[in-house]
Amino acid sequence: MDNKKIVLAYSGGLDTSVAIKWLQEQGYDVVACCLDVGEGKDLEFIKEKALKVGAVKSYVIDAKEEFANEFALAALQAHTLYEGKYPLVSALSRPLIAKKLVEVAEMENAVAVAHGCTGKGNDQVRFEVSIQALNPNLKVVAPVREWNWSREEEIQYAMDNNIPIPINLDSPYSIDQNLWGRSNECGVLEDPWAAPPEGAYELTASLEKTPDIHDMIEIGFENGVPVTLNDIPYTLTDLILELNQLAGKHGVGRIDHVENRLVGIKSREVYECPGAITLIQAHKELEDITLVKEVAHFKPVIEKKLTELIYEGLWFSPLKDALMAFIKQTQQTVTGTVRVKLFKGHAIVEGRKSDYSLYDEKLATYTASDEFDHSAAVGFISLWGLPTKVSSIVNQKKVTV
Amino acid sequence: MDNKKIVLAYSGGLDTSVAIKWLQEQGYDVVACCLDVGEGKDLEFIKEKALKVGAVKSYVIDAKEEFANEFALAALQAHTLYEGKYPLVSALSRPLIAKKLVEVAEMENAVAVAHGCTGKGNDQVRFEVSIQALNPNLKVVAPVREWNWSREEEIQYAMDNNIPIPINLDSPYSIDQNLWGRSNECGVLEDPWAAPPEGAYELTASLEKTPDIHDMIEIGFENGVPVTLNDIPYTLTDLILELNQLAGKHGVGRIDHVENRLVGIKSREVYECPGAITLIQAHKELEDITLVKEVAHFKPVIEKKLTELIYEGLWFSPLKDALMAFIKQTQQTVTGTVRVKLFKGHAIVEGRKSDYSLYDEKLATYTASDEFDHSAAVGFISLWGLPTKVSSIVNQKKVTV
Amino acid sequence: MDNKKIVLAYSGGLDTSVAIKWLQEQGYDVVACCLDVGEGKDLEFIKEKALKVGAVKSYVIDAKEEFANEFALAALQAHTLYEGKYPLVSALSRPLIAKKLVEVAEMENAVAVAHGCTGKGNDQVRFEVSIQALNPNLKVVAPVREWNWSREEEIQYAMDNNIPIPINLDSPYSIDQNLWGRSNECGVLEDPWAAPPEGAYELTASLEKTPDIHDMIEIGFENGVPVTLNDIPYTLTDLILELNQLAGKHGVGRIDHVENRLVGIKSREVYECPGAITLIQAHKELEDITLVKEVAHFKPVIEKKLTELIYEGLWFSPLKDALMAFIKQTQQTVTGTVRVKLFKGHAIVEGRKSDYSLYDEKLATYTASDEFDHSAAVGFISLWGLPTKVSSIVNQKKVTV
Amino acid sequence: MDNKKIVLAYSGGLDTSVAIKWLQEQGYDVVACCLDVGEGKDLEFIKEKALKVGAVKSYVIDAKEEFANEFALAALQAHTLYEGKYPLVSALSRPLIAKKLVEVAEMENAVAVAHGCTGKGNDQVRFEVSIQALNPNLKVVAPVREWNWSREEEIQYAMDNNIPIPINLDSPYSIDQNLWGRSNECGVLEDPWAAPPEGAYELTASLEKTPDIHDMIEIGFENGVPVTLNDIPYTLTDLILELNQLAGKHGVGRIDHVENRLVGIKSREVYECPGAITLIQAHKELEDITLVKEVAHFKPVIEKKLTELIYEGLWFSPLKDALMAFIKQTQQTVTGTVRVKLFKGHAIVEGRKSDYSLYDEKLATYTASDEFDHSAAVGFISLWGLPTKVSSIVNQKKVTV
Repeated sequence: MDNKKIVLAYSGGLDTSVAIKWLQEQGYDVVACCLDVGEGKDLEFIKEKALKVGAVKSYVIDAKEEFANEFALAALQAHTLYEGKYPLVSALSRPLIAKKLVEVAEMENAVAVAHGCTGKGNDQVRFEVSIQALNPNLKVVAPVREWNWSREEEIQYAMDNNIPIPINLDSPYSIDQNLWGRSNECGVLEDPWAAPPEGAYELTASLEKTPDIHDMIEIGFENGVPVTLNDIPYTLTDLILELNQLAGKHGVGRIDHVENRLVGIKSREVYECPGAITLIQAHKELEDITLVKEVAHFKPVIEKKLTELIYEGLWFSPLKDALMAFIKQTQQTVTGTVRVKLFKGHAIVEGRKSDYSLYDEKLATYTASDEFDHSAAVGFISLWGLPTKVSSIVNQKKVTV
Repeated sequence: MDNKKIVLAYSGGLDTSVAIKWLQEQGYDVVACCLDVGEGKDLEFIKEKALKVGAVKSYVIDAKEEFANEFALAALQAHTLYEGKYPLVSALSRPLIAKKLVEVAEMENAVAVAHGCTGKGNDQVRFEVSIQALNPNLKVVAPVREWNWSREEEIQYAMDNNIPIPINLDSPYSIDQNLWGRSNECGVLEDPWAAPPEGAYELTASLEKTPDIHDMIEIGFENGVPVTLNDIPYTLTDLILELNQLAGKHGVGRIDHVENRLVGIKSREVYECPGAITLIQAHKELEDITLVKEVAHFKPVIEKKLTELIYEGLWFSPLKDALMAFIKQTQQTVTGTVRVKLFKGHAIVEGRKSDYSLYDEKLATYTASDEFDHSAAVGFISLWGLPTKVSSIVNQKKVTV
Repeated sequence: MDNKKIVLAYSGGLDTSVAIKWLQEQGYDVVACCLDVGEGKDLEFIKEKALKVGAVKSYVIDAKEEFANEFALAALQAHTLYEGKYPLVSALSRPLIAKKLVEVAEMENAVAVAHGCTGKGNDQVRFEVSIQALNPNLKVVAPVREWNWSREEEIQYAMDNNIPIPINLDSPYSIDQNLWGRSNECGVLEDPWAAPPEGAYELTASLEKTPDIHDMIEIGFENGVPVTLNDIPYTLTDLILELNQLAGKHGVGRIDHVENRLVGIKSREVYECPGAITLIQAHKELEDITLVKEVAHFKPVIEKKLTELIYEGLWFSPLKDALMAFIKQTQQTVTGTVRVKLFKGHAIVEGRKSDYSLYDEKLATYTASDEFDHSAAVGFISLWGLPTKVSSIVNQKKVTV
Repeated sequence: MDNKKIVLAYSGGLDTSVAIKWLQEQGYDVVACCLDVGEGKDLEFIKEKALKVGAVKSYVIDAKEEFANEFALAALQAHTLYEGKYPLVSALSRPLIAKKLVEVAEMENAVAVAHGCTGKGNDQVRFEVSIQALNPNLKVVAPVREWNWSREEEIQYAMDNNIPIPINLDSPYSIDQNLWGRSNECGVLEDPWAAPPEGAYELTASLEKTPDIHDMIEIGFENGVPVTLNDIPYTLTDLILELNQLAGKHGVGRIDHVENRLVGIKSREVYECPGAITLIQAHKELEDITLVKEVAHFKPVIEKKLTELIYEGLWFSPLKDALMAFIKQTQQTVTGTVRVKLFKGHAIVEGRKSDYSLYDEKLATYTASDEFDHSAAVGFISLWGLPTKVSSIVNQKKVTV
């Protein structure tokens, strides 16, 4: 009689390699599943390693396009910066990985899905809520959270079971990466008074080593989607990858953040998101000329909610669909070109233009071509300030502060 | 019989100098009043010029301390960045100037107050709403808005009336400055596709000319107020001025913004706020370790409202007092030190520490000293995701998208 | 040579009848246009009266279906109660009337549009902003605001010009009515300490005269649209009209409101909205069982913004489209039946059911069939309260309040 | 050697009586603690019963004044209606009970605190988060959640241990009550299509049995605090109790609510809050005339957040203090009198007056005494609608929907 199957989100690292063995010991046949969301790993190597360690089957799935077009694009159009800073790198990939795990589990008639998260991070929440939303019949197993070993115990177990120990095992960092950026926590970063060491960064040059000559680029948007770089058409995936290179070279997109995790603690992380930050800045500036004032002032409310929802693992909540319906509606006229100067860690928007621009030079100018009705202001001010004025008349007589 | 008195907000420039004469022709005795809010003008010269042009009296009032402690401090503690970018430079000084004008008007038994704003900017609203709130009996006169002359007509009038023409008259820019920063509009800036020319800037070095060696500073805060720089006590005024120099030298705080004015148009402005931006970044990062998650996530809602309220001229609305009561309550534990690296246009917070820090290394760590209860996550996730799960169970059977 | 044409929103009352003559004197040919949005007027009489008073052409347009399906439905699905109370009666019809006026103006090659509003209400804003949004080339004329006559002067002008004086001229009230309700201001209502007299009401019975036997009704919804009453299919127009009768008989939907007008003053109005209030209550209760928690808690933010936007005359702002995209997305599962008891001024929802109900008796019950995982709560509470706990540990040692 | 002490929140009912014994078996000396927050129980009987069942000490604490002045008052001034309906009855008393339990525990040198909540309600969260915030050293025990017995098992245990079985044991309801109202869940109420039976209610008359003659009352407020009823001074406690009687007689304050619990499920509850609802309505209407528009439109944002925070057990979060600082600041001018008609389930505000009223009859009137500047509207509308107008001009040419 066959064992029950479990689909494991497999990264090729120590934790998930050990998990293959550990899950076998729990009586499962392990189907390894490695998702490529743009982290630039050697996928063939990972695929083989899973089989070598004991998986009965090993999937490698290229999900870069889906990640770019559904997840990164939402993050771009909604300027999702958690607590004003973190562009949701891992928070964006988790629901997609969960979706793919569920698809594989359903194909394979698996009874369970496993992930390699610990018990104190956000990612366990994102995985498990997503998996339950997509298929509530699937059991979720979290080996690392369950075995609760020390680092030494885990290594001992690996050696006992002939599981290859990665050579960079003594790296002090815990890293996650995808198209939208790279996150890094642990080690020396746990002291919020200490500066992150250069070794914590990989995608971006340090300011001290950036070129002394800027790059000037033009990004073209259509309906809120970046579609060209310097007038050359790009897929979104390629555009992000290209900007990661180009803006990374100039040191754009380093973020050092003490953030509030969903699980109730503060943690300090560093992120590198050269492409994401460049695109968000450019997109925001194009919106500044194409969105009408009322939309421009309310969209941030939607953005903040969507950001928190995604951070908190609720990508598959119906609320995401409703928030995105709002966002999509606003993107109809976000079409135009933005000129960005990449230099010394900055993505400086120097110019923006659009056929839908609501910036009207004839209204804005102080020159002779001014078409603004200056006298209208008198009536406007009179009514605009009326509540404050009445309040002052009434309360200056009464209230003693 | 005496003429009626009017108090004029006097800057020493062409517009308000011409206004002295023009108001005289309307039958007023003009009391000039020049406020020093940190723009670094030659106040004695301005005081004399007013009298020379025809004012019956000329006041110069040093309001720097009041501006720093009541207005700039509110902006700092509430991180007031209009549309995420503009630190409310002029929007902060207008209510204070209005207050001083009203005080002088009441001392002088004046019947009216005058300002030099045109009819299409925000400042006319800020002045007039503030003045009406403080003394609804005072008439407000806006000569520039009323006379509606072309530049040539105004110069002709000035020459006809022996009013000195400033030597920088052909400057293409319209500038306002105070402790909190410098704003600049007009001229070539009216084309949002054009990059701002270097001549538009004064407080900040261009990135190309910033030093190749950074400055590292430590800013000490007590209850949300910055009180020391590199362990040396400073008044807030002096601290801002010092940081304007230091951060300005490194090119920190240049902002290029197409914004939505209260009067219904979009306009493009450039701002320089080296001290303001440095302080806001440092303060925000100190809050990141000292504010509890719920406060950290809701304070931005208050900040956004307060920012818009101030931008829109409603400083003296009772809503400001209520919003500030919230802000002040949150500042009780914002005490600590922030280390900032000033370099190549960046004010990079590299370290933050506080006796009130809620960042708990023993909870956050991935090392052996970990005190976080990993098993708690299982129950948390189960309930956190329950609504999404139930929704999926119910609706996957029913909804066809 | 022909006069220029103007299209006048014509109600048949004194103001707009006088306006026909007055506009003629300004040199216009007046095209009268009367919209039927469900106020139950004698439209043929109004059509003829316009011609008799001097209009060159007289339109009567039945816009009830469009009003119900686009405007009232949005108000229902978004529970638009301004300041928590007023269901936007007139605020909803103004943009539709503006739209029809513009359509007629374009058909008739008119150069202008006119409305009968005074200068201190909200409706002038709603009309004019809407008209400008739909066709910025059309001039807007507001005769009543311009002539600025006293009541006596207006009557004298009417008599001098053979304009019929309505018999109810001495009514102390100013009334507006449509499918969604009836508003009433002025007269004795201007004293907010005085109770509204019975004569101020027309659609609803006074509580003292309501039947002593309730009516029990069932309203069926599909995707947020009410489609049946007691299992009988209804168009939305007919359903609202029927409920106005039925709920009005029971005294449902009287509202007495001191509200903040857009133009800066507070005004006191009474409203009667028996159908609207009954439908909003029923719809809200159906949402209570069909919307997932996150949607249920955020939708009110959208509702509040949409309500204020409509109240403030910005129906045709792109922000409305984005907000409605959110609302529409949430209505997909708002399908089911609500049982309402109409009695003594109440529309009491006694029962609600839906195939999409997220209320799960097996999770909610305290009986033996309970499927809720009670032990999960321990972990949930531990992490939910962690920020507060850490804050207490840190700050109880430090802060002296 | 002594046992460790535990302080138990004791109600006198079966669960907490059994808990005394059960906690003894875990090795604790049990200190019973019964809080009087206005539920009208026989406190002396409860005190004795605890000792009889086995408590080593039994406290009865009258916390009515503290409950009224700190908790109910906050709920009143902030109009805290969870999901627009539930006035937070139990959610308000839990943090106060927790505070008293901690105080007793500290006096008694107890090591732990216990409560009688199950694992699926909100109250366990409110108790435990509050206790941890006030004294993180105290352990929290939840006997009912831990023993996880069926009803039959619990009764058997009680009989085996000579614990008196209450006579109303077969009541289908689970009830909680305090000054601010009464909540009831379970039994037939678990079917959201069923109407609540009359037996579910106790504080309010059914509409069918309410008097046919109304009561008219006047409530006087000072700085947001209700201080008189019909001109007679009252403490807040007595005022609420009196209104519970008076408004309850007229059937005011019945609420039937399917709500989203914090622990992820929907539950259906009925509430009776005659005093609370009457006071909230009156207070809101007084605010309608005394709060300036900007405050009136933003205070609901604060109210919603505060409501959710309290519902979710975070009374002792620093966020509550900041939100209340906002609320308190707004109450300075909420002074005046409200006339309320209690009749047929309604608390109808018929009149409101205040020395701080911002309703200005001379501005609001349509009579000859009108002081509003009608011409100001023209300029106001022109600028108010400008963004929408520009957007239309630009986009009507471009966007095809």
